[in-house]
Amino acid sequence: MTGPRRLHLNAFDMTCAGHQSPGLWRHPEDRSHTFHDLRYWTDLAQLLERGGFTSLFVADVVGLYDVYRDGPEPAIRDGVQVPVGDPTLAVSAMAAVTERLGFGITVSLTYEKPYALARRFSTLDHYTRGRVAWNVVTSYLESAARNLGLEKQVPHDRRYDVADEFMEVAYQLWEASWDDDAVLLDREKGVYTDPAKVRPIGHRGEFFDVPGIGLTEPSPQRTPTIFQAGASSRGTAFAARHAEGVFVISPTPEGLAPRVAELRRQTTEQGRDPRSVKVFTMLTVVTGATDEQARERYADLSRYVSLEGALTLYGGWSGLDLSTMDPDEPLRFAETEAIRSAVELFTTADPDREWTPRAIAEHIGIGGMGAVVVGGPETVADEMERWAQVADVDGFNLAYAITPGTFTDVVEHVVPELRRRGVLPTEPEGATLREHLYGAGQARVRPDHPAAVHASRRGASDT
Amino acid sequence: MTGPRRLHLNAFDMTCAGHQSPGLWRHPEDRSHTFHDLRYWTDLAQLLERGGFTSLFVADVVGLYDVYRDGPEPAIRDGVQVPVGDPTLAVSAMAAVTERLGFGITVSLTYEKPYALARRFSTLDHYTRGRVAWNVVTSYLESAARNLGLEKQVPHDRRYDVADEFMEVAYQLWEASWDDDAVLLDREKGVYTDPAKVRPIGHRGEFFDVPGIGLTEPSPQRTPTIFQAGASSRGTAFAARHAEGVFVISPTPEGLAPRVAELRRQTTEQGRDPRSVKVFTMLTVVTGATDEQARERYADLSRYVSLEGALTLYGGWSGLDLSTMDPDEPLRFAETEAIRSAVELFTTADPDREWTPRAIAEHIGIGGMGAVVVGGPETVADEMERWAQVADVDGFNLAYAITPGTFTDVVEHVVPELRRRGVLPTEPEGATLREHLYGAGQARVRPDHPAAVHASRRGASDT
Repeated sequence: MTGPRRLHLNAFDMTCAGHQSPGLWRHPEDRSHTFHDLRYWTDLAQLLERGGFTSLFVADVVGLYDVYRDGPEPAIRDGVQVPVGDPTLAVSAMAAVTERLGFGITVSLTYEKPYALARRFSTLDHYTRGRVAWNVVTSYLESAARNLGLEKQVPHDRRYDVADEFMEVAYQLWEASWDDDAVLLDREKGVYTDPAKVRPIGHRGEFFDVPGIGLTEPSPQRTPTIFQAGASSRGTAFAARHAEGVFVISPTPEGLAPRVAELRRQTTEQGRDPRSVKVFTMLTVVTGATDEQARERYADLSRYVSLEGALTLYGGWSGLDLSTMDPDEPLRFAETEAIRSAVELFTTADPDREWTPRAIAEHIGIGGMGAVVVGGPETVADEMERWAQVADVDGFNLAYAITPGTFTDVVEHVVPELRRRGVLPTEPEGATLREHLYGAGQARVRPDHPAAVHASRRGASDT
Repeated sequence: MTGPRRLHLNAFDMTCAGHQSPGLWRHPEDRSHTFHDLRYWTDLAQLLERGGFTSLFVADVVGLYDVYRDGPEPAIRDGVQVPVGDPTLAVSAMAAVTERLGFGITVSLTYEKPYALARRFSTLDHYTRGRVAWNVVTSYLESAARNLGLEKQVPHDRRYDVADEFMEVAYQLWEASWDDDAVLLDREKGVYTDPAKVRPIGHRGEFFDVPGIGLTEPSPQRTPTIFQAGASSRGTAFAARHAEGVFVISPTPEGLAPRVAELRRQTTEQGRDPRSVKVFTMLTVVTGATDEQARERYADLSRYVSLEGALTLYGGWSGLDLSTMDPDEPLRFAETEAIRSAVELFTTADPDREWTPRAIAEHIGIGGMGAVVVGGPETVADEMERWAQVADVDGFNLAYAITPGTFTDVVEHVVPELRRRGVLPTEPEGATLREHLYGAGQARVRPDHPAAVHASRRGASDT
């Protein structure tokens, strides 16, 4: 590649208050509690588009963080991702007031049927003119499983087996069922769609039977851009096969580097260009006109962190209730896998530090488990370029401390510096989200993507 | 009541082309094939709001009309409700450009989970500021069942048993789980929500177990306005219990009158005010400045009807493939229930007429199975008032011949006449959809509605 490495910015949000920053809803500037108002979303989308963001990434859970203190009360009291709304429903309002911002929407396939979900994403891809991504998750909260009719949660690896087949079904519906020229709108002959250019997918599998045709004509991207955010080994394998954007989390770029390398290695093993996976690492930027102003901002924000809220989040993510432990006793690897994986992220990423429950809570307090960078425009841009270089990431998933304040600060102070350095384009690179990632002309999946094989079934029945 | 009877106008549409008017997508003025473009929906919503419509009703199927000629080809070729998009996703874009229009969205509960669907409608009710209705359906297409993972469709009456419990679960999530003052946003004490004002519903039933709390704080209407459109005896019983708006179809008001009377009788039996159910009958209005212009309009529109498309629709609705019958042989009551119920609508509603397949297709061709009125403003307004008087209906579900042309014609010619007669208000009667139906102040379910009993569980734990 020539020139400096292009960096992608995502905004990380959720249909709730204080998303990754527990307690910060109390900050006087924070508007996250207005998430029920469409204006929150349309204003945010326009801000991000102005700032050259690639996309807005909307997370989701369909349950409660009820591990910490063994019940939902801490989450309810602190407003930790509850109340929480559906993530798919503000997209059209945002799409109507923007031209190129992408929308990465989280939907857990564990509780969906591929035939209906494929139609939902096709409809969103039409309405956004090709700017939608599906962040594929398999739910991690037991409380979701209990309320959605499963006695207990489907085991983790089994969930990914279901996910693999779910994706195959969806790919067939998106890529194979309708030819690009199937819809004729031939008013003379009275042919809306040529039946010879539409075919049933005839899928019979272990988990799903979908014999019929897709319900929608091809949307600009056909398959929505595929995002993935799971960090487990099975999640990484899923990402290596399916993901076009992967969201990762690490306190340091050095800790992240081997994981990104492993992801790219596995992507290559899947027969894909390792650059087909764009890696976004979570980062919270606290900035201002100068380093000094940024530090003042950080000190101000820190006063609103809820440590109880942070441990409530951590309980949901890790399955680990730290309320039973001494807040100042360092965590050690333990016998159970739950505790091992919960601790691993911190200890392996930053092995020189001792992580106590309190230290974890303080770290999570602003921007969740990702890193935080505090500084003026040059400091932040330097740090972003360092992450890209050390960890080989393609961009950042920017969590907020307060919203839209954190994003407003980034757009005002950091974006001009990134554009000055030539790492953030001033002009859009294409109309669709996939073109933002891969370049103009690449609205459809790349040939190395598993959905592409189904595209070859198209046009076989040309008349 | 004093003064003339207030009439409600609904626009009937679907995320597809030529909704109830097969072949009319070929008309040069028709824009229904642009349904993938958000502008189609935002322009339509603004037009309807200007015309004083109560709501836009978006129908849906998650399958194909594949009964006629024993396959999907006729539907695909004629564009009969395929391609078809998801009905929930344009709502926020429309809500953002309107202030009081309601949105009645069809979702089949047969393939949904109440915990997740309750959240979707709560989110829509927040985003619309209380203007959403759920049109509750239990799917009727075998092709939907096959592709959504059911070997064959759940039997009709069983679907309604599931539906009754589904509604109970959803009502509890909407009405009982969160107190109105649960969300405190108390920045001093750091309390987002008072846990004592949020309670798990603890539902254990035959079809669903939902132990937890609802995921969303109360929306303006809490329970979305409930619409229902099934005409079977079990469907009528469901409507009498749950529906606030009921959509019916009949070629004549005289044929409809006993059905409406029976619905109101059953509503009374359920302990509800018979006036709590607002009945909308399907009507297609072909109008112009004068009767003469309207007749010319009708003659022009009729040239584009697809009789094959009409019989394809009829096959899906009735389960009856009329392709095997002589197009000019009158239909008779037959031994099978499918044929009896399919024929019944026409023969009982208009017993003096002989209904052949061709006559049915011609009738369906413009506006589906509902009545068509052709005339200038006074003729149409007279006919509407006659329907209200003879059949005791509260308003009309207006299908289009072409869109937005049919609605534009109604707003231009008929709405001023209805307003002149005082049967259509010039000013909004309230902020929410339910207030449009019941009057200002009635944003929440009326006390006679089955959801209301769950409201009594609120506030019991006041602190």
